[in-house]
Amino acid sequence: MELLLPNSANSCPLTTLGFLERAASAYTDCPSIVYNNTRYTWSETHRRCLRLASSLSSVGIERGHVVSVVAPNVPPMYELQFGVPMSGAILNNINTRLDAHTLSVLLQHSESKLVFVDHLSSSLVLEALSLFPLDINTPQLVLIDDADDDAAASTAPTSPPTVDFIDTYEGFVEEGDPKFKWVRPKSEWDPMVLNYTSGTTSAPKGVVVSHRGIYMMTVNSLIDWAVPHQPVLLWTLPIFHANGWSYPWGMAAVGGTNICLRKFDASTIYNLIKKHGVSHMCGAPVVLNMISSSPNFEPVKNPVQIRTAGAPPPAPVLARTESLGFVVSHGYGLTETAGIVVSCAWKPEWNELPDSERARLKARQGVKTIGLTDVDVVDRETGESVKRDGLTQGEVVLRGATVMMGYFKDPEESSRCINGDEDGLFYTGDVGVVHPDGYLEIKDRSKDVIISGGENISSSEVESVLYSHPLVNEVAVVARPDQFWGETPCAFVSLKNEFTQKPTEEEIIEFCRARLPRYMAPRTVIFSEQLPKTSTGKVQKFLLRKIAKSMIS
Amino acid sequence: MELLLPNSANSCPLTTLGFLERAASAYTDCPSIVYNNTRYTWSETHRRCLRLASSLSSVGIERGHVVSVVAPNVPPMYELQFGVPMSGAILNNINTRLDAHTLSVLLQHSESKLVFVDHLSSSLVLEALSLFPLDINTPQLVLIDDADDDAAASTAPTSPPTVDFIDTYEGFVEEGDPKFKWVRPKSEWDPMVLNYTSGTTSAPKGVVVSHRGIYMMTVNSLIDWAVPHQPVLLWTLPIFHANGWSYPWGMAAVGGTNICLRKFDASTIYNLIKKHGVSHMCGAPVVLNMISSSPNFEPVKNPVQIRTAGAPPPAPVLARTESLGFVVSHGYGLTETAGIVVSCAWKPEWNELPDSERARLKARQGVKTIGLTDVDVVDRETGESVKRDGLTQGEVVLRGATVMMGYFKDPEESSRCINGDEDGLFYTGDVGVVHPDGYLEIKDRSKDVIISGGENISSSEVESVLYSHPLVNEVAVVARPDQFWGETPCAFVSLKNEFTQKPTEEEIIEFCRARLPRYMAPRTVIFSEQLPKTSTGKVQKFLLRKIAKSMIS
Repeated sequence: MELLLPNSANSCPLTTLGFLERAASAYTDCPSIVYNNTRYTWSETHRRCLRLASSLSSVGIERGHVVSVVAPNVPPMYELQFGVPMSGAILNNINTRLDAHTLSVLLQHSESKLVFVDHLSSSLVLEALSLFPLDINTPQLVLIDDADDDAAASTAPTSPPTVDFIDTYEGFVEEGDPKFKWVRPKSEWDPMVLNYTSGTTSAPKGVVVSHRGIYMMTVNSLIDWAVPHQPVLLWTLPIFHANGWSYPWGMAAVGGTNICLRKFDASTIYNLIKKHGVSHMCGAPVVLNMISSSPNFEPVKNPVQIRTAGAPPPAPVLARTESLGFVVSHGYGLTETAGIVVSCAWKPEWNELPDSERARLKARQGVKTIGLTDVDVVDRETGESVKRDGLTQGEVVLRGATVMMGYFKDPEESSRCINGDEDGLFYTGDVGVVHPDGYLEIKDRSKDVIISGGENISSSEVESVLYSHPLVNEVAVVARPDQFWGETPCAFVSLKNEFTQKPTEEEIIEFCRARLPRYMAPRTVIFSEQLPKTSTGKVQKFLLRKIAKSMIS
Repeated sequence: MELLLPNSANSCPLTTLGFLERAASAYTDCPSIVYNNTRYTWSETHRRCLRLASSLSSVGIERGHVVSVVAPNVPPMYELQFGVPMSGAILNNINTRLDAHTLSVLLQHSESKLVFVDHLSSSLVLEALSLFPLDINTPQLVLIDDADDDAAASTAPTSPPTVDFIDTYEGFVEEGDPKFKWVRPKSEWDPMVLNYTSGTTSAPKGVVVSHRGIYMMTVNSLIDWAVPHQPVLLWTLPIFHANGWSYPWGMAAVGGTNICLRKFDASTIYNLIKKHGVSHMCGAPVVLNMISSSPNFEPVKNPVQIRTAGAPPPAPVLARTESLGFVVSHGYGLTETAGIVVSCAWKPEWNELPDSERARLKARQGVKTIGLTDVDVVDRETGESVKRDGLTQGEVVLRGATVMMGYFKDPEESSRCINGDEDGLFYTGDVGVVHPDGYLEIKDRSKDVIISGGENISSSEVESVLYSHPLVNEVAVVARPDQFWGETPCAFVSLKNEFTQKPTEEEIIEFCRARLPRYMAPRTVIFSEQLPKTSTGKVQKFLLRKIAKSMIS
């Protein structure tokens, strides 16, 4: 057959931004966002996001600029996932738990033109900007004042932002034009979001995902989780984690209600489930721990779907969570894949198995989702697929429409993990096996990464801080299993011999806390005369992990 | 931000064909197809489709060849939706209700290399091939013998296909290699399916849809209908109608069970729902009529989702269908958009309204689905959007990823409806209005089309047959409303004056039946001395439609 070329009617770029316009027609007066005493409808959210995009345009934001956000899951955070890219800008969500130094590095690296700052992060951001070199322009700031957060309002009254902030968020929204013509991408490959996965002491790794990538992740996330129309989603997953795995856009697609929250514990979760009839929530396994470790709660009335990723839920946590009326689904993805690309598709016959067996099966990451083209586990030396025996380890490699465009301003690192010349696959750095039934199981996330409470911690970043300590000779940081957090960083330290005064464990930890975001600092320090090494001088981290694991916590 | 280019890991072509491989892993031993005494699992369906593709390759089918299928919704029909494109070929499903002449025209126009023929259509296809000019090669034939269809087997015993058929379907599958490496598209814009929308007397219009278009329609159809995992779908929608709106691929994505059937009436439907726990079905409104007009049936135990398109379900049909436990959703699409692109998103508050009001709202086609970029109703003269008043009519125009690549071998007709130079939209030919709430309502499908029992009938095709009658002077064919079929063709005929012997209504109908597929022949013929015309001589079809409508049926 003669080839027909793409035409004007079918080659319009894929983008999730149009979902909002549709939601305003299809779910007009239905609730879009609920937060304390704040309630918006889809029609209102549509108008507010257009206003937001309009105001961004008014203050000089143009196609291709980067706009950053430092905020928890409050309503503005949701709106910004639409409003920023609707102005043509690239959205850069920043983890609120970073320290001023890291924040400064990322804001400089991203060349942010404007930052939306939650009021509780304002002093942090101002400090970060003070660390900018004199010859680099600092971004404009908009203050997210949270009038609806009673607790925060009383503890941290913010003075009018006359000096540092160009406007408050609400003022900014109000000044915008709800009839603004939002800026459509010229190509579906245009960048839409930028998400940093590291950046304290090592080179910042800014993952760039296109409109097409986000679109594909959004539809994939809806289908894979079988999300019905008008679900009620409790935002226990930080949106700054890979854009809440694309569910902000997914909720607009299905007209869901977003239950926003600033921070939470088990009783907040139970209360909100009860109050709003929550049907869905996502989160790191630490959220499951939270739910399942509270002895005081009765099972929820209607089943709540909970989707977790990052690390498999431990068997007792899984059993307890499910006994409380939650339906757990487990998946795997990276910031570099924009969300979950492999998930543990559940077979009905498995429901008949005993708890422990069900937990073992559910702990596996699973099979490719429909948005992924290929997933495989390959031998690092030969590049061949490993045996499907559940034993032979190899590196997890992927190919699919949601894979990032690359790391921002880092072609070298980009081509290190996406080797276009050879097999063209994305190398995740994670180690896994394939079971005889084709299900993938991760045995070791990327050697360098410790996952604590859903946050990825680069062990090399922690190590490089420790090396700056004057008494430290050699260090290795590994993950130590933790009942609650999943893992915490554990540092093995050998000291320089010439000094007689030895630092204490607490002193080392304090040293790190002063130089790293708090969650990245080691929780445990083990002094050792010498670190175990291979014949070629490489530290044998697997031995250290065994030691860390064996310690009574 | 610097632009990053698509890379080897994320620019792999979108295609639904990989869903099958995934289904074999994720839904291994779960049922894929059920038909009389036949049952397949997803693992078996995966292997059978690979074998099919392998055998096609063995008999010389290559990338870009067209392979046709003339079959009802039996298991091979399902398998062929994967097997044919997995061989690299373009899949051309042909309506089983066509006559030999039309079939011959389509097989020649499509340049089919091979045709899969259901045993009940074998004499028809052989007749069609006998109509080929001597200098045109006829395609190879594979016979779909249906050993599992008791009724058919007894009425139409087929002799071994030694002469005309190269193989039986089962033989063909068995000879194939289940380890065949299926042929992936080189580009997601490569053609995947070819579906004819007309072709008897007027030029064949062969709609070409790409792998990308089918992928987008498939995910769109799943999300818009909120299809859960492992639904049970009763195949009351012919797969040869725009590939069953892409649900063959959708069922593989969610691991559904496909309940196949050769033909059906209300009692078949009820029995299969009961027997297999059917949860989902699609069909033209005639299927709703069937369900709702049977007085003997009790409401179904569990709600059955039923999706309809083509024409809005009439209020009493809707009310009765819903009272029987069916949940009706209504959408709009064309073969040219590969399925439903606009649907009547239902608002919870509408559930409180009286039946008649709910029916009025549900009769509207609705809002764009998430797979569509734009839908609008524009004034044909000015190209401007019409007022959103529910009254001002205009032409429905669309833009979105599922729009066809064009009509096969007909660049003129393609560019007539997709005017890339001007606004770049696809012009549907359908006439609609937009209500103040943004919901679209079709007032008139393309002037030229009559929809009878879910089949599109081109009135100009019927007219041109009537014009070949020696006694006919002038004709106009319009739709006449029909309780059961929705519409039937009604011919207004003026006769030549010089003849005194007038034909009867029956003679005219017989004349058409001899020259057209049976369903296309007029059901009513009205003789008229002169047809009403405008001052410029155009037949005023709207007046004829009024007359047709007013006739007691």
